[in-house]
Amino acid sequence: MKLRDDTREPRRWIHTYTQTTKKMPFHSHPHALPIEETRLRLEKVRQEMTSRGAEACIFSTPVNSLYLLGYIVGGYIVVLPEGDPWLFVRRPAGLQGDRVCYIGRPEEMITRIAEEGTPLPYNVALETDSLPYSDITRLLRACGDVHVVSADSIIRTARAIKTPMEIEQMRTCGKIYCRAFAEVPHLYKRGMSDHDFTLAWENLVRSMGHIGIFRTFGSKMEGFMGTSILVGDNADAGSPYDFALGGAGMHPSLPMAANGTVLQEGQTMMIDGGGCFGPYITDMTRVYALSTLPEIVQRAHQCSIEICHHFQQTARPGMLCAEFYRAALERVTEAGLTEYFMGHQQQAAFVGHGVGLQINELPVLFGRSREKLEAGMTIALEPKFVFPEIGAVGIENTYLITTSGVENLTADAPEEIIYL
Amino acid sequence: MKLRDDTREPRRWIHTYTQTTKKMPFHSHPHALPIEETRLRLEKVRQEMTSRGAEACIFSTPVNSLYLLGYIVGGYIVVLPEGDPWLFVRRPAGLQGDRVCYIGRPEEMITRIAEEGTPLPYNVALETDSLPYSDITRLLRACGDVHVVSADSIIRTARAIKTPMEIEQMRTCGKIYCRAFAEVPHLYKRGMSDHDFTLAWENLVRSMGHIGIFRTFGSKMEGFMGTSILVGDNADAGSPYDFALGGAGMHPSLPMAANGTVLQEGQTMMIDGGGCFGPYITDMTRVYALSTLPEIVQRAHQCSIEICHHFQQTARPGMLCAEFYRAALERVTEAGLTEYFMGHQQQAAFVGHGVGLQINELPVLFGRSREKLEAGMTIALEPKFVFPEIGAVGIENTYLITTSGVENLTADAPEEIIYL
Repeated sequence: MKLRDDTREPRRWIHTYTQTTKKMPFHSHPHALPIEETRLRLEKVRQEMTSRGAEACIFSTPVNSLYLLGYIVGGYIVVLPEGDPWLFVRRPAGLQGDRVCYIGRPEEMITRIAEEGTPLPYNVALETDSLPYSDITRLLRACGDVHVVSADSIIRTARAIKTPMEIEQMRTCGKIYCRAFAEVPHLYKRGMSDHDFTLAWENLVRSMGHIGIFRTFGSKMEGFMGTSILVGDNADAGSPYDFALGGAGMHPSLPMAANGTVLQEGQTMMIDGGGCFGPYITDMTRVYALSTLPEIVQRAHQCSIEICHHFQQTARPGMLCAEFYRAALERVTEAGLTEYFMGHQQQAAFVGHGVGLQINELPVLFGRSREKLEAGMTIALEPKFVFPEIGAVGIENTYLITTSGVENLTADAPEEIIYL
Repeated sequence: MKLRDDTREPRRWIHTYTQTTKKMPFHSHPHALPIEETRLRLEKVRQEMTSRGAEACIFSTPVNSLYLLGYIVGGYIVVLPEGDPWLFVRRPAGLQGDRVCYIGRPEEMITRIAEEGTPLPYNVALETDSLPYSDITRLLRACGDVHVVSADSIIRTARAIKTPMEIEQMRTCGKIYCRAFAEVPHLYKRGMSDHDFTLAWENLVRSMGHIGIFRTFGSKMEGFMGTSILVGDNADAGSPYDFALGGAGMHPSLPMAANGTVLQEGQTMMIDGGGCFGPYITDMTRVYALSTLPEIVQRAHQCSIEICHHFQQTARPGMLCAEFYRAALERVTEAGLTEYFMGHQQQAAFVGHGVGLQINELPVLFGRSREKLEAGMTIALEPKFVFPEIGAVGIENTYLITTSGVENLTADAPEEIIYL
């Protein structure tokens, strides 16, 4: 990189800001986050930057734009260890602010930052886990001789701990979602296929404010509104995607969710989905049936509820995610339900995951996890069981970890199997 | 890479297959493409591999799995210059065939191929434009000392020319989509907001078989079902995404499409969308209004129709995409409509694009394009105009380039402005 000083050794970022701007540079946008909220989120990101030795972070994915700004911009957000972030915009037109620059090529970012007299960083964090290889190599060409670290790891760790504003948005989202679930008995008509019901459900949640998409992390997922309604054996159809229970789908073009099955006596219908009523997702599952189910199936549903209640009673900041996963597995083993746990033909080896702007955030509750629960984390806990010819049972709630315990953000929907 | 021979010079692939399998290895899947179709698609991919000197292609994105196999697999498809492809599967369980191997780590692919006595390639094509940087570097670690080229360029060039089977699927898709558009006058009720109408439209197209998602290429897009219904000034709202006309959206979390505007006298409602009735998308736009529009707006709509008809009459294999773009621009300039063309506040510099499994395929009809039309290409042509306070006009059709001319795959919907 021509513009930075000569040394090529990894080094700490040199703080040379003589002044900081009073307003956040991107505050001209009508949907910009309140300044204090932006500062809070930036602080969390910077803590992670420091602990990983990153001297600059460049973000450009929609989800991270949404997190840092409150709206989505086509371009780059550059976070340095101090001072306001830079906003290098491709589109839309019309944004204004001290550090807002319209650019065509990424090289212009580097030139512009250097013009301020700011030494350019060596350890640069880029979204290596979410941006295509060619986008990253293009950015690296622009940055010159730098060492790249993962900006996804940095911001996903920061995003795992929600701010009070985020928590409030997720709380609201959970309440709306519970109201949608309360409509199920009115929405469902006997003889409906899972696909017919899916269409009615989509229409309901959209009319309640579902934004339409649900965001996922990583390249192994596709999806549509985040809704998966699984009836009978379709709950056991193996998915090519990284979902716990997949479903075969209506068409090989999108092999997930409903496949046209009509719910029969003795079978279950599981509604699993991401409720995206605003930027945040709450993840939730409930089970429906027409008539009484075999004893073992009812017992499995009860086991799922108990695992969730056990989490509610025992989870605290500091608890190891792996520890809770093992406790859940133990309970399942004691109940003699191992072969049905988290799938039957294809079993998933986790019991819960972080959720927020994306459906699969940190932490993950699985056996080899080294993560600990922290206050502000929002966890979708989903102990589920799949029985051949019958279907899936179990519940999923989204829980907030508080300083003293757990708050259930999806508490307003009954957890028992509901008979339609 | 330990397993391949010592030379590190780029070299041609050495053909050492002593026999080929009789069946396609992945033919055990119920949705597998007919063998002859797979061979046809592989042949097209291999032509591009040869012309770019690639000795192996490794595909793993859902869209390319769908193209090569007819279904989506979680894993890797390895295409070598000869013989059947290898299928290295992570999920779902249960696939069978001669060259189907279940693997955990990408290294196992290399081991398995080497065990067959096949020399390992140096020029390896990976999906560098669509897989995250970290996925590609992981694959490169597995492959060892190789030279990477873009598998996206290879397969997107191959995919630009549709096979007869693909054309038939797109033809069917276009016919269904035109039937959906015929419902608009029955679906629309005076006083409906664009968002209310969007919900009714989503429900309609889903009930007609829309798979729910529309696939896009590149990291600069997000979307939901591919439907954008734009009323009045919302047609001029700048998008952060790479869409021609964006719309502000209902929420900053997804700044695209309807924003809650109610269609008024003297305004337009544009329905633009990807109809995904099966794996393929047809892209189509029509315009609606309540009452007569200003003369200049009507003239612009007529200009759009004329550009499309001119394309239908003159486009042939061999025509330069840039040439047609310039011809369209010239017509717009002559009509004195330049300032409204392809947006008003934010203008897009293209007039059409390939469409197929994804909404933004090759070629692109823009000024600096070097591409030529070829028989089998399917082009969404969308000359549009945006007028402040009134809205967008213009049409979009999906055209098939044939050996002798052009077939309109969206011919069954009237092109004039429809008064509701």
